Amino acid sequence: MLEDNTVQHKSHIFEAGMGLSSVKSLEKVSSRSENAECNIIPKKRATLFFSITDQVGALDKCLQALKIADVSLTRIESRPSKTVDLGYDFFVDLSEADAEQIQYAVGNITKLDIVRQVNLVENIQNPKNISELANDVWFPRKKRDLDTFAEKVLEMGEDLPSDHPGALDPEYRKRRYDITQFAKQYKSGQKLPHIEYTQSEKDTWKVIYNALKEAYKGRACAEHLHILPLLEKNCGYSPDNIPQIEDISNFLKDCTGFTLRPVMGLLTSRDFLNAFAFRVFHSTQYIRHHSKPFYTPEPDVCHELLGHAPLLADPDFAEFCHEIGLASLGASDEDINKLATIFWFTVEFGLCKEKDGSIRAYGAGVLSSKGELEYALSGEPELKPLSLTDTPCQSYPITKYQPVYFVAESFKSATNLVRQFAATIDRKFDVRYNPYTETIEVLDNKNKINQFALEIKNNMQILTSALLRTASQ
Amino acid sequence: MLEDNTVQHKSHIFEAGMGLSSVKSLEKVSSRSENAECNIIPKKRATLFFSITDQVGALDKCLQALKIADVSLTRIESRPSKTVDLGYDFFVDLSEADAEQIQYAVGNITKLDIVRQVNLVENIQNPKNISELANDVWFPRKKRDLDTFAEKVLEMGEDLPSDHPGALDPEYRKRRYDITQFAKQYKSGQKLPHIEYTQSEKDTWKVIYNALKEAYKGRACAEHLHILPLLEKNCGYSPDNIPQIEDISNFLKDCTGFTLRPVMGLLTSRDFLNAFAFRVFHSTQYIRHHSKPFYTPEPDVCHELLGHAPLLADPDFAEFCHEIGLASLGASDEDINKLATIFWFTVEFGLCKEKDGSIRAYGAGVLSSKGELEYALSGEPELKPLSLTDTPCQSYPITKYQPVYFVAESFKSATNLVRQFAATIDRKFDVRYNPYTETIEVLDNKNKINQFALEIKNNMQILTSALLRTASQ
Amino acid sequence: MLEDNTVQHKSHIFEAGMGLSSVKSLEKVSSRSENAECNIIPKKRATLFFSITDQVGALDKCLQALKIADVSLTRIESRPSKTVDLGYDFFVDLSEADAEQIQYAVGNITKLDIVRQVNLVENIQNPKNISELANDVWFPRKKRDLDTFAEKVLEMGEDLPSDHPGALDPEYRKRRYDITQFAKQYKSGQKLPHIEYTQSEKDTWKVIYNALKEAYKGRACAEHLHILPLLEKNCGYSPDNIPQIEDISNFLKDCTGFTLRPVMGLLTSRDFLNAFAFRVFHSTQYIRHHSKPFYTPEPDVCHELLGHAPLLADPDFAEFCHEIGLASLGASDEDINKLATIFWFTVEFGLCKEKDGSIRAYGAGVLSSKGELEYALSGEPELKPLSLTDTPCQSYPITKYQPVYFVAESFKSATNLVRQFAATIDRKFDVRYNPYTETIEVLDNKNKINQFALEIKNNMQILTSALLRTASQ
Amino acid sequence: MLEDNTVQHKSHIFEAGMGLSSVKSLEKVSSRSENAECNIIPKKRATLFFSITDQVGALDKCLQALKIADVSLTRIESRPSKTVDLGYDFFVDLSEADAEQIQYAVGNITKLDIVRQVNLVENIQNPKNISELANDVWFPRKKRDLDTFAEKVLEMGEDLPSDHPGALDPEYRKRRYDITQFAKQYKSGQKLPHIEYTQSEKDTWKVIYNALKEAYKGRACAEHLHILPLLEKNCGYSPDNIPQIEDISNFLKDCTGFTLRPVMGLLTSRDFLNAFAFRVFHSTQYIRHHSKPFYTPEPDVCHELLGHAPLLADPDFAEFCHEIGLASLGASDEDINKLATIFWFTVEFGLCKEKDGSIRAYGAGVLSSKGELEYALSGEPELKPLSLTDTPCQSYPITKYQPVYFVAESFKSATNLVRQFAATIDRKFDVRYNPYTETIEVLDNKNKINQFALEIKNNMQILTSALLRTASQ
Repeated sequence: MLEDNTVQHKSHIFEAGMGLSSVKSLEKVSSRSENAECNIIPKKRATLFFSITDQVGALDKCLQALKIADVSLTRIESRPSKTVDLGYDFFVDLSEADAEQIQYAVGNITKLDIVRQVNLVENIQNPKNISELANDVWFPRKKRDLDTFAEKVLEMGEDLPSDHPGALDPEYRKRRYDITQFAKQYKSGQKLPHIEYTQSEKDTWKVIYNALKEAYKGRACAEHLHILPLLEKNCGYSPDNIPQIEDISNFLKDCTGFTLRPVMGLLTSRDFLNAFAFRVFHSTQYIRHHSKPFYTPEPDVCHELLGHAPLLADPDFAEFCHEIGLASLGASDEDINKLATIFWFTVEFGLCKEKDGSIRAYGAGVLSSKGELEYALSGEPELKPLSLTDTPCQSYPITKYQPVYFVAESFKSATNLVRQFAATIDRKFDVRYNPYTETIEVLDNKNKINQFALEIKNNMQILTSALLRTASQ
Repeated sequence: MLEDNTVQHKSHIFEAGMGLSSVKSLEKVSSRSENAECNIIPKKRATLFFSITDQVGALDKCLQALKIADVSLTRIESRPSKTVDLGYDFFVDLSEADAEQIQYAVGNITKLDIVRQVNLVENIQNPKNISELANDVWFPRKKRDLDTFAEKVLEMGEDLPSDHPGALDPEYRKRRYDITQFAKQYKSGQKLPHIEYTQSEKDTWKVIYNALKEAYKGRACAEHLHILPLLEKNCGYSPDNIPQIEDISNFLKDCTGFTLRPVMGLLTSRDFLNAFAFRVFHSTQYIRHHSKPFYTPEPDVCHELLGHAPLLADPDFAEFCHEIGLASLGASDEDINKLATIFWFTVEFGLCKEKDGSIRAYGAGVLSSKGELEYALSGEPELKPLSLTDTPCQSYPITKYQPVYFVAESFKSATNLVRQFAATIDRKFDVRYNPYTETIEVLDNKNKINQFALEIKNNMQILTSALLRTASQ
Repeated sequence: MLEDNTVQHKSHIFEAGMGLSSVKSLEKVSSRSENAECNIIPKKRATLFFSITDQVGALDKCLQALKIADVSLTRIESRPSKTVDLGYDFFVDLSEADAEQIQYAVGNITKLDIVRQVNLVENIQNPKNISELANDVWFPRKKRDLDTFAEKVLEMGEDLPSDHPGALDPEYRKRRYDITQFAKQYKSGQKLPHIEYTQSEKDTWKVIYNALKEAYKGRACAEHLHILPLLEKNCGYSPDNIPQIEDISNFLKDCTGFTLRPVMGLLTSRDFLNAFAFRVFHSTQYIRHHSKPFYTPEPDVCHELLGHAPLLADPDFAEFCHEIGLASLGASDEDINKLATIFWFTVEFGLCKEKDGSIRAYGAGVLSSKGELEYALSGEPELKPLSLTDTPCQSYPITKYQPVYFVAESFKSATNLVRQFAATIDRKFDVRYNPYTETIEVLDNKNKINQFALEIKNNMQILTSALLRTASQ
Repeated sequence: MLEDNTVQHKSHIFEAGMGLSSVKSLEKVSSRSENAECNIIPKKRATLFFSITDQVGALDKCLQALKIADVSLTRIESRPSKTVDLGYDFFVDLSEADAEQIQYAVGNITKLDIVRQVNLVENIQNPKNISELANDVWFPRKKRDLDTFAEKVLEMGEDLPSDHPGALDPEYRKRRYDITQFAKQYKSGQKLPHIEYTQSEKDTWKVIYNALKEAYKGRACAEHLHILPLLEKNCGYSPDNIPQIEDISNFLKDCTGFTLRPVMGLLTSRDFLNAFAFRVFHSTQYIRHHSKPFYTPEPDVCHELLGHAPLLADPDFAEFCHEIGLASLGASDEDINKLATIFWFTVEFGLCKEKDGSIRAYGAGVLSSKGELEYALSGEPELKPLSLTDTPCQSYPITKYQPVYFVAESFKSATNLVRQFAATIDRKFDVRYNPYTETIEVLDNKNKINQFALEIKNNMQILTSALLRTASQ
């Protein structure tokens, strides 16, 4: 085992439960990881969407029809319809319900003559049931739908495998448990958890912070070097202080609209990438065990804050992540797997070309490990150009340094690559993110498409006005 | 005095302090209002923007230069530059500073060789100083800049004029004071104040609620009638409950991206309209005096929640308000006055044509007053078509029912009218609202323009993909 | 009568035959003009459009169905359909047919099961029949449809009224007859008629050319002064030579895509403006009578070549004319009349503001009359700002100098004004001009709309690429 | 030798003279072809562009400066400038001039203080001189620049190699000479040559026409089968008549804006593809030798009219060709070679997938050879998916049937592929085609970019208006 190593499991990208196929491309999966998968029983997420026409008492009729079925409704929202003129849209979350109950509820709704479109989307662990029940794939449509991800982690913060440096330290495990409880209870829109870090935790941070800052010279990409000082001035980054994600989130919001959310541990690839469609990044808040400051088998606050956070303040990089997120919504397990692989070789382990032609690192996995940062740029591993054909299919190890890295020409060109890849994804619909309402709109309806077209037209008008004004100045 | 009357001062639109000219068009200004203006000393808002190139220690240099000047800095933010490649942008709020101190600070900054563009924008009470100090007009650039509006109200919630129904009720005045303190302390991003309304307050609400619901039949516009039931199902609207603005704000966010903010009392036209550029609506939370449930001389929770809130859930109406807000940023006092007049005859007292040709009300002033609602549609007052030439210059009374109302063909056509009016405003710059970062971007720079163009292009790609897909289905 | 005067009838804008209402707003119509109207019997233009689905022998079926009806078919074109996937579009001109025959033909076509959409558009002299027969208004859809305008002139070149300076000169009338025959026989796509001007004609030209060039100094707008030297270098403009419209047309094509077409005399407003939708300008080729070189009661080669041609080389002005043309397609007689009035006060008699604030002339009527050019800028007549509300309704004399002129801020702002006016026109459809196929596309069909959207998207991609490239250079 | 074979040299794609490298990828080049290259001395094309500011006498100054240099000027055009506000653009063709003379002329111009930008672009046979003289690559900027291609053919129509079926038939060679003289003399804008075909030529056509129509059943793509009947109804296609390219060109113009031009023989790849940027297709008019109706070693009227013409009426296919054309402007020899290879495997030998999943032919080389059409779809040759990575580099034989064909999913997807390929081309500029002025605009200047942006904005406005209108109908 490598002493200086954040490699093992450092990526946020794991696929389990509903999308097992994605694991196949991994060169080697540690036995612990496999165990972890067995222990997870992701909660079923079933959401019922439907639209109704307006009529006196229409809303009551629908609510009645839902109540008759003995389903536990964790959410009932009605909104002005985006598809039926002067109609209403319903969003209903059904939980703990078995297939029969759900079918009964759906049947009740479908029978109403005011109902126009009924969509039941489910996220079921056992694929053999999907064809029976679901006529669509579940994905988050509103930013607060991300709240349902909280408990669906592949590895809990406090359940440490035997080879984890903190496995035998009950105090460390208790601390991780406490911190992850904040993440568990966190709901969209709330203030982010403020963690009072202990002196021991701060000491661990200091060792890493100082070592990495030294290593960044000549190795970190221009964007990282450019933004880190801003984080020091604005968000409390320093050798002596572990920054609070609330401060970083506010800073990122200003720069690119990205925000952070606390997370208990590893999410599935699908969930983790889906959140990017909302410009949301899931961040852990606990820190690695003090006994091995240069080693962590999973993401921790050092990886997030030093590896990921700086880049999320860069507009082009943010756009790149957003594009991956949008592509992942409702994608097949196979495509999720490819997107996760692209993610691995970019956001986690990406290298890029600087204007002066030199190769630098922008991947968080590299930027949060002094050892791998030096290794990656040592000339030893193979460097390939980031490519639409090679990258999505490249296999990779998760327990040692990468043998292959991909080099991006620029974030803009990497974004185009993702966009081209997304165009090859076999999805039956187009989506846009509406940043005003923080919702994903499926553009399957004239009203929504026309609204979008109007928005583009108005923006085009502002753009040309600005172009002409700056031309004449 | 009219018993059933929410007319007097019901509009949010008052102009004072820095923009006195706007009052001139009012047919009659009550003496109380004039007194109010004398008592207000809006705080000076001075903000210093500048951009610097990247250099080792650049951020420290700037901070040092600012500290030397003995100015009270209420905010120093540094961000990745949107104008200088790999540079930084600074935003510095200077408060309580006199002209000399500010000039000294600006001078210090300007001397630095890394500094590229320095803009000092000020909002000064006494216009004679403007030309000396300010080289630009102040307006909110970030959503949280709206925090500076909190204390700049024309009329305080608890300072009631002698003719106010609650003027002699010390308990009522204490209650208003308590409620406005929440608004005073509120900061962007926080949870909105939850008010536990008393039984007496609920009783007042109930009388009004029931009377208005009855009056809406055949008089309120289709959009209002369509959305009110949703507010009942989702946000606690009912005869027996005064809804919480937190719930309404979340609902509106889902529908159109509008959010509510608590406010102590009347803002200036400029501030009130500026907030619309961020899709933010300032809402009072106190209720009128129980002695006269059908009369209020100023906006209260009934006016906001029954008059304004429903319409803000309509996408076309929201777009209309947003457009007014954008036009108001940095506009001259004269143009602000015209925009406020347009606002008065639309958002406050607007009538519109339904699809069946009938005339209905959508203005909050009309929709929150049973008396004026009936009067406006009685055939008695003059109805004119909303127009670019007439509406902005129409004078109006603020202490009695309107003699003239303007009828909009549709919210879309009203929005185009505002857009056309905005094109005539003599502003030296173009702005766009970036909903991701919740900032106003002044499009005076190639980098920002190109970023915007890219965004439009990407959206155009999504649009055409969706158009082609729906065509082939 | 004014000696130096090109005023009377100098405008191309007359309305007769099918749209008599448009004449009403003229302050005074000369009796000659009224006579002219009586003598004109515009040919009926009936065009049958229909789309069919593909099927073996489908084309033959349709041709058969048309032949059975005993109608004279002056054109039968079949093309790949723009509305029916893998279908065909037919364009059939029916001439000299009476209502019954046409109805029979239409009936035959409509009966076919492969036929999808049948549109019969007619241009009928007697409005009382319109409702019976036509379900749509005729307008040119292809550039070569303009060929049908050739004989529909309000005043023939050689039929001179008694007060015409050349009325009693048989040689002059013979010459006009000969020149207008070229125009009569001209068909789209042919080389433009080359006229060998006589020495007498050249002498007349020389007198005018020299006088006007002198008068332009300080009075013609910047664009006119800028382009005239180019016409001298490239198109044979000189005191001693009357330029050929072929050379000018080729030059204009290079600059703005405008081309010239010969015309026999005055067209109706509708026809004249419709041609602008194709960026086609109808130009006479004969010259005024040598006895009065500074007077002409109608457009002649001096008016066209010195007044109109230079401005048509300016991109903003060309855009302005194009916009008027598009707005005129299928507009009601009332709207045509308003557009013609806008045309009169811009293209014919427009003044504009220069960058230095001075007022200059750009209207062809002014620029081709030394007398009116001096008068218009003398301070004597009233000058009003060009406006959406005033200009379209302003009455005007056609037999003397204008009492009122309108001043445009710029061609760009004038174009916006026309665009805004066009938006108020009550047309049931949107059109675009496809410059590749030189056709007007009515955007009433998903296929056409999507094709257009794709084109915009591709252009947007080129635009952003260019913006980014020039930014980085 | 294969009797039924139009393979050898049937493609229009040959590269010689200035871009020899492109030939390298050919599997085998016949000796005749090599000889042909030796005999060709393409004329040098040098064009001088420059812009000047406006000033009294500016145009004369420039003309004077050009005349002093003793260069033969085949064209001097001055136009309103697209880059300098109120300036002028000059286009000057210098022919027969040696390097020194040209440099002298350029020097004279550069010295003038009114001159802003000087570009000399040259097309020189011997690459070793390029760096000395040219600072830019020549490509046609105006449609009529294509006139310069006329004599630059790789193989003259009448110079037949010894193995040509008509090599020993003096009458046939005389006939070819006569027909190619029309092409030689043809200038842009003229009526296309009308050829009176002899009975013998018509007989040859008839044999081929009948054989191919039979072979098309079940083999030609849907678009070809759809359009051929239209050509029969509108353009005189029939077994007994060889259609005139004038009629076809007019038909294509209506459908897609493509037009035909006569050509003497094979053009270089660069010239042939460049013409596509103007939607111009070079078509031969002579027919193969009557002795071997199913064999031709080069393109002839059968290949053009039956293979190419039908597809050029399809909007998606036209867009595809246009995109290749735009990509080819100013591309390096290496990129031209790749584009020519893409062209070979699409426009000449492409297969495509029908909606029912079957494979059909759309390449003109396949569609004009009964033998190859049957062979290509027989299952014998290898079929690969059209791809960005494989297709541009695939080698191919020109003297026998293809061993490999590429299958396109659709013309739209093929167009995207070309667009993606074009994005990889290392060109220093972006171009657009302006269909109004029939010019290529290099978007290297703010004025041009802004004009383009305005055009897009206006189109966007029309699009949204149409979208909203069709939505409400």
